[in-house]
Amino acid sequence: MNMNRRTAFAAGLAGATIGLGGMARQAAAQPAPGGDNVSFYRFRVGDAVVTAIHEGVFVRPLEGFIRNATMEQVKAAQEEAFMPAERVTIAISSLVVNTGGKLVLIDTGLGEFAPPTAGRWMANFRAAGFDPANVDTVVISHFHGDHINGLRRRNGEAVFPRAEVKVPAPEWDFWMDDTRAAGAPDGLKPNFANVRRVFAPMAKDVTRYIWGQEVAPGLTAIAAAGHTPGHTAYALTSGGGRLMVMSDTTNAPHLFVRNPDWAAIFDMDADAARATRHKLLDMAANERLQTSFYHAPFPATGYIARDGANRYRMVPAMWQPAI
Amino acid sequence: MNMNRRTAFAAGLAGATIGLGGMARQAAAQPAPGGDNVSFYRFRVGDAVVTAIHEGVFVRPLEGFIRNATMEQVKAAQEEAFMPAERVTIAISSLVVNTGGKLVLIDTGLGEFAPPTAGRWMANFRAAGFDPANVDTVVISHFHGDHINGLRRRNGEAVFPRAEVKVPAPEWDFWMDDTRAAGAPDGLKPNFANVRRVFAPMAKDVTRYIWGQEVAPGLTAIAAAGHTPGHTAYALTSGGGRLMVMSDTTNAPHLFVRNPDWAAIFDMDADAARATRHKLLDMAANERLQTSFYHAPFPATGYIARDGANRYRMVPAMWQPAI
Repeated sequence: MNMNRRTAFAAGLAGATIGLGGMARQAAAQPAPGGDNVSFYRFRVGDAVVTAIHEGVFVRPLEGFIRNATMEQVKAAQEEAFMPAERVTIAISSLVVNTGGKLVLIDTGLGEFAPPTAGRWMANFRAAGFDPANVDTVVISHFHGDHINGLRRRNGEAVFPRAEVKVPAPEWDFWMDDTRAAGAPDGLKPNFANVRRVFAPMAKDVTRYIWGQEVAPGLTAIAAAGHTPGHTAYALTSGGGRLMVMSDTTNAPHLFVRNPDWAAIFDMDADAARATRHKLLDMAANERLQTSFYHAPFPATGYIARDGANRYRMVPAMWQPAI
Repeated sequence: MNMNRRTAFAAGLAGATIGLGGMARQAAAQPAPGGDNVSFYRFRVGDAVVTAIHEGVFVRPLEGFIRNATMEQVKAAQEEAFMPAERVTIAISSLVVNTGGKLVLIDTGLGEFAPPTAGRWMANFRAAGFDPANVDTVVISHFHGDHINGLRRRNGEAVFPRAEVKVPAPEWDFWMDDTRAAGAPDGLKPNFANVRRVFAPMAKDVTRYIWGQEVAPGLTAIAAAGHTPGHTAYALTSGGGRLMVMSDTTNAPHLFVRNPDWAAIFDMDADAARATRHKLLDMAANERLQTSFYHAPFPATGYIARDGANRYRMVPAMWQPAI
């Protein structure tokens, strides 16, 4: 901001009484101790306690992110959300569900495979009072790296040594098919290889679930294919509470909740993903369900309001200091 | 939620495959260790580092809260924001500004005078790495208890022993006037008494500032009367960054940013408060300024978008894991 804009800002607010003293640039402030934000958030869903664990963010160019919208349209959506014009910031948070005495993790974050803007998952998980050795079940929504890489360290060790790992059967069938892997287009080869790195050593122990099944106490797997062939959402019901876990039904809500017809480059079957998106957003809006999105801004939970023809808006849930 | 609604929720999502097993009520889950949320949030404004410190929330009946709207209108606003129909939850967060090596606190929270839904200020302040003995300056926006009670303990001790305390001159003149205190209506007498409890022991050391003055490096006091006679907002400018500190220019944004003509019962001069509210919201929207509201949901920072004739909406800033 140049001096003219800064002067106009304070002077416009303060009237004519402000002097230029207020405009002088200060020496750089010392960051306070512990500069990073502690980024976990706990809330109740009926008798269950859900904790959102923040991994951090991806930052990528806006260009090339959305297949079927012009840069002008995408920039307008960024502006509406007070986001920058040239890059998109994609938040990542997974959920720990403590229900009926079971500690259940839904998706793992990036583990040791994170860019510098992320990689905070384990620190936030521990800050929330959790220990990886106490996780009973890891439920995986789909096989993209930001959802599965936290399962295994670079040295091959399992991160959650006691946990049963549960994966969607159609996702397993797609990615673990050796013929398909051998014939995959170059763009998908790294993903096939990464899936093998993570799952091959535990293949005989992995539990494959089908849509409609209860994968943990009160947690039901919901068909949500399109983003990937086996992509799964979840319905959590406990006592009087309900939470709709949307996984990657949308990427960043300010783009894809707002414009459900837009297709992110990560959607493997854009038409199926769009149909899933409309179905689940419509249900969330009709039922006024609390939702959680893997790629919504932390703490990544809120409601879906209709706002325009075939458009929605995510309304963040109010932060509560205690559960 | 009754069994029918719960069944419809999961079955509607899962199709016909779900069995009643998924519906069984689970035993109460153990809350995870450290059940409360750590509620501080640090962000940069130019070279300054700002930390929002969450005090907790007030919960009060919706009835009687807004002077000039019907219960039907207020309930509709609550519903639009996915808030309950019978009560309003008012969040409280104050700001620590670290700029040019000075540690500046804007408003103190409730200290030892909090209801059970609040009282978390000092724990969150310490969790953020701060020590009350290191605060250089406490800037007070106005003399309501939730802004000043953190200055002094029940036993009389000053909470920030080294800090210079700076207050708006017109606020001081109003509340410290003994003739006005003696003649105050019953509803205001506790407030006059509380102001004396807090400030009388330090009266000779308190610095009174006027609007337009720089009260701390880069922090300019802005006239915002109406809520109280000396109510003050602030413009923080540092490097290329700007933050508009709104204080109590609005109470809960989902009610009063959305409906700036509505008057909360706490506004002492409703017409002046309304004029201030329009002026500052209009400026924030025009300039696309980052704002912070004392009574917005934690972390209490975001932007002001126009949304309808004479109406606005607060768009929360995206949570960043690191400053």
